[in-house]
Amino acid sequence: MRLAALLSATALVIATPVLAQAPDRVAINGIIDQGFNHSEVMNTAAWLTDRIGGRLTNSPQMREAESWTAQQFRDWGLSNVRAEGFEFGRGWSIVRSSARMTAPRSIDLRAIPVAWTPSTDGVISGDVVVAPMTTPADFDKWRGKLAGKIVMITKPDTGSEPTEPAFRRWTDDELAGRTAFVQPAHAEPSLGGLREASFAERLDAFLKEEGAIAWVKMSQRDGGLLHGTGYTYRVGTTPTLPGMELAAEDYRRLARLAKTDASPRLELMSEVRFHDEDVNAYNILADIPGTARGGEYVMAGAHLDSWVASDGAVDNAAGVAVVMEAARILKEMGVRPKRTIRFALWNGEEQGLLGSLAYVDQHLATRAPLNDPELDSLPNGRTWRQRWPVQPRPGHADLVAYFNIDNGSGKIRGINAEGNVAAAPIFEEWLAPFASMGASTVSLRTSGGTDHVYMQSVGIPGYQFIQDPLDYGSRLHHTSIDSYDHIKPEDLRQAAVVLAGLLLTAANSDEPLPRMPLPTQPTPSDPFAY
Amino acid sequence: MRLAALLSATALVIATPVLAQAPDRVAINGIIDQGFNHSEVMNTAAWLTDRIGGRLTNSPQMREAESWTAQQFRDWGLSNVRAEGFEFGRGWSIVRSSARMTAPRSIDLRAIPVAWTPSTDGVISGDVVVAPMTTPADFDKWRGKLAGKIVMITKPDTGSEPTEPAFRRWTDDELAGRTAFVQPAHAEPSLGGLREASFAERLDAFLKEEGAIAWVKMSQRDGGLLHGTGYTYRVGTTPTLPGMELAAEDYRRLARLAKTDASPRLELMSEVRFHDEDVNAYNILADIPGTARGGEYVMAGAHLDSWVASDGAVDNAAGVAVVMEAARILKEMGVRPKRTIRFALWNGEEQGLLGSLAYVDQHLATRAPLNDPELDSLPNGRTWRQRWPVQPRPGHADLVAYFNIDNGSGKIRGINAEGNVAAAPIFEEWLAPFASMGASTVSLRTSGGTDHVYMQSVGIPGYQFIQDPLDYGSRLHHTSIDSYDHIKPEDLRQAAVVLAGLLLTAANSDEPLPRMPLPTQPTPSDPFAY
Repeated sequence: MRLAALLSATALVIATPVLAQAPDRVAINGIIDQGFNHSEVMNTAAWLTDRIGGRLTNSPQMREAESWTAQQFRDWGLSNVRAEGFEFGRGWSIVRSSARMTAPRSIDLRAIPVAWTPSTDGVISGDVVVAPMTTPADFDKWRGKLAGKIVMITKPDTGSEPTEPAFRRWTDDELAGRTAFVQPAHAEPSLGGLREASFAERLDAFLKEEGAIAWVKMSQRDGGLLHGTGYTYRVGTTPTLPGMELAAEDYRRLARLAKTDASPRLELMSEVRFHDEDVNAYNILADIPGTARGGEYVMAGAHLDSWVASDGAVDNAAGVAVVMEAARILKEMGVRPKRTIRFALWNGEEQGLLGSLAYVDQHLATRAPLNDPELDSLPNGRTWRQRWPVQPRPGHADLVAYFNIDNGSGKIRGINAEGNVAAAPIFEEWLAPFASMGASTVSLRTSGGTDHVYMQSVGIPGYQFIQDPLDYGSRLHHTSIDSYDHIKPEDLRQAAVVLAGLLLTAANSDEPLPRMPLPTQPTPSDPFAY
Repeated sequence: MRLAALLSATALVIATPVLAQAPDRVAINGIIDQGFNHSEVMNTAAWLTDRIGGRLTNSPQMREAESWTAQQFRDWGLSNVRAEGFEFGRGWSIVRSSARMTAPRSIDLRAIPVAWTPSTDGVISGDVVVAPMTTPADFDKWRGKLAGKIVMITKPDTGSEPTEPAFRRWTDDELAGRTAFVQPAHAEPSLGGLREASFAERLDAFLKEEGAIAWVKMSQRDGGLLHGTGYTYRVGTTPTLPGMELAAEDYRRLARLAKTDASPRLELMSEVRFHDEDVNAYNILADIPGTARGGEYVMAGAHLDSWVASDGAVDNAAGVAVVMEAARILKEMGVRPKRTIRFALWNGEEQGLLGSLAYVDQHLATRAPLNDPELDSLPNGRTWRQRWPVQPRPGHADLVAYFNIDNGSGKIRGINAEGNVAAAPIFEEWLAPFASMGASTVSLRTSGGTDHVYMQSVGIPGYQFIQDPLDYGSRLHHTSIDSYDHIKPEDLRQAAVVLAGLLLTAANSDEPLPRMPLPTQPTPSDPFAY
């Protein structure tokens, strides 16, 4: 504690390499030359997006992406390129789809099949009924009213008023505000509800039983954007009724007309395929072997899978291209790091960080079973945070730092130290060569929602970069316009340079990054709550 | 001059009714009650958008809108409800359409047929060639390279970075900035090029001659938005080759792939109909008759026609609904104005303000012929501004004020006095009752692009309101999301109240609004230019 406080006190003290080795700035000059003057990052991004397209876990497109990225790593000379499998579920892909309103007038609508729902039987049509349902308690209200209908399951809201710019970069003030420690929210994971089927499965069963012919939901964004996200991918749980997402404008028009005497009718066509040849999904791993520190390694990762409303460009071909470009740069330079540098392209991230979780479970740490046969048979991710204690595996100590990229194509502005006050001053030192590129902020905030989370959950120093937000959250995340156009080349080049530099520094530092204590079951936030 | 300057000097002087009669605030209380507590404006807007949909000039949907609005006026008790025709051209409507990329992979694309292009012969497919052409001089570059191809005629740019909020309202500072006089830009209309066919016609002929099978252009906005605008509507000039607009993201993807070895292929299907039963388009007019001022009248107008990528909601069902609601409010109140109050729903606005031009030409003033048989045979709008002198018709003096609404669904923040320094202080007085609703700015700016322009061009006091911009220009104008969702109910109710109040005040004022001098041919901006 004292030493960490000392380290963070002044830049003068930080410059003295106590725990960490200062970055090799000559090597970083080489990285900058390779990353800015000889970049391949946009070619990589273009292949993943334009050529392969959206990469839903276990879809043919994702299989192609697995092969292509592995081959790229091999072509660039990386070592030990491999695919590590974990059980996922069914593959699914869209062949084509369409939707039309046919009464009171005929127009083409914007629609996408919801992931893992089945095909329609050719073109189907029916009257619509607006029957918003969000919990099983809503079923009673609609029982007996849905036979032969296309059921509109979302309650329509009104249009948005986007009063903030869609595209932005962090200001200095905003970045400065991130350096304050944020006390972790004390959310207590609960086992409640885990024994039940998901609402999506129960809704499917209810609609089937009622004789509905299909369902549609409303896009959660307006502006004509679509997503098509769905989560019923496990073998034996994929739905029986076709479901489609409609553009908010199209959905609301139908809903309004359904409140009049217009009797709107909807025509749907969804042709999709399931792929059951292999229920495993695969993470792609590749190494630059270390020369001096035994099994120790540093790792960078990004998820390769995406949703399929568009080409999964900023979520997350951008991150994959940056990780692969860092590998290419370092390999091209012929670096011989003390520790192994590993590059990981995760699978199944969009369905719950499943690829990185599988890696954690297989290589780093597992967690005790609940000793409840029903709950212990659930997929790992469902109960992970509720199982104590964390049980480190032999490889737990070997992974000395993990860096994740999954926040769009914005350039790197710094790193989230995830509340680790011992690591923060070291990051400040490591990022110093990149300050003039805008990548100097060390935030003490935690960040969630992507593949460093499960590493953090077992005490591995896994970190997520701070990236300029651009229009990632406002209009691209999971949407029908997440294509190559919206990737910013200058930003990606910068990110690859910073990542390559950080990896090399971490691989060669005398000491590994300081760790947080191994997590144990937290006390409840309010011990006297009922 | 002196009197006008005096009027604008102080509010005290303005309050003395010299040229104008102060607004009848008791009547305005009645308008407020009717417009806010008993509004029908959103029902009107919903019928025009949800029920009828996009209303391309001379399409069946526009015919339905002509009938429905006329019947509404009749149902509300307006007088002299009539349709005034003018020669336009062919009607056109979309039945259905689709586009797919089929190589190097298969995906559905977002596309819309370009207005007045013909159907494809079922589903057609071909290799693409990126051949940007903007002038006939570009044809040589592509001659001999287009046979059997689908030609991509737009030069692709890169994605946008929307750093301004899409949705906004005028700030006080912005409104204050509008009160300064703006010297008119001295653009000299030219007769050059009028003898030639339009570029669209020449491009169609070139592509046909080269054996291309279709053409596609890129949407001018990204974000997946489409427009489908096209202007070759005259009998005898509609194109022979199908043309479609692709979403910018889809177009750019094809263009990038065409730069690689991927050989992208495109599949297009466009089923459209032409409607030649009646080449006339019709303005819908309705009156509340005056009681005391002979043929004098005041008029409010909005264009009823729209593009068809969506339902023509903020452009301009919103304006139509406001004009119709003002009519309903005043009729419901049983007003008996001194001057007739006329309500006009224009046609053919999107193709060049053609409906309001026809009204001007038929009722207000015409312009001398050029005495060139070829040029004089062109449609009125092509040569209107180049023909001198303006020749007033007997009705010229009768129209004492025209108010236009065509800037989306934002509430009224004031009015553009169009450089008329004599009218400005009168507007300040007339708008005073609406200051607390935010509608108090009298701008001296001119405004263009809609149906008051041709009235201004012959010296009629035609004015356009200042409306809050909202997201009209940023994402709704002519796009595939211009549907009812994005109309703001509170704004429309306010606009109808302000318009009804202003119409009543103008109809009852002692003196008509001051006019500008009858326009005569301007001197050139630089008399010595070569």
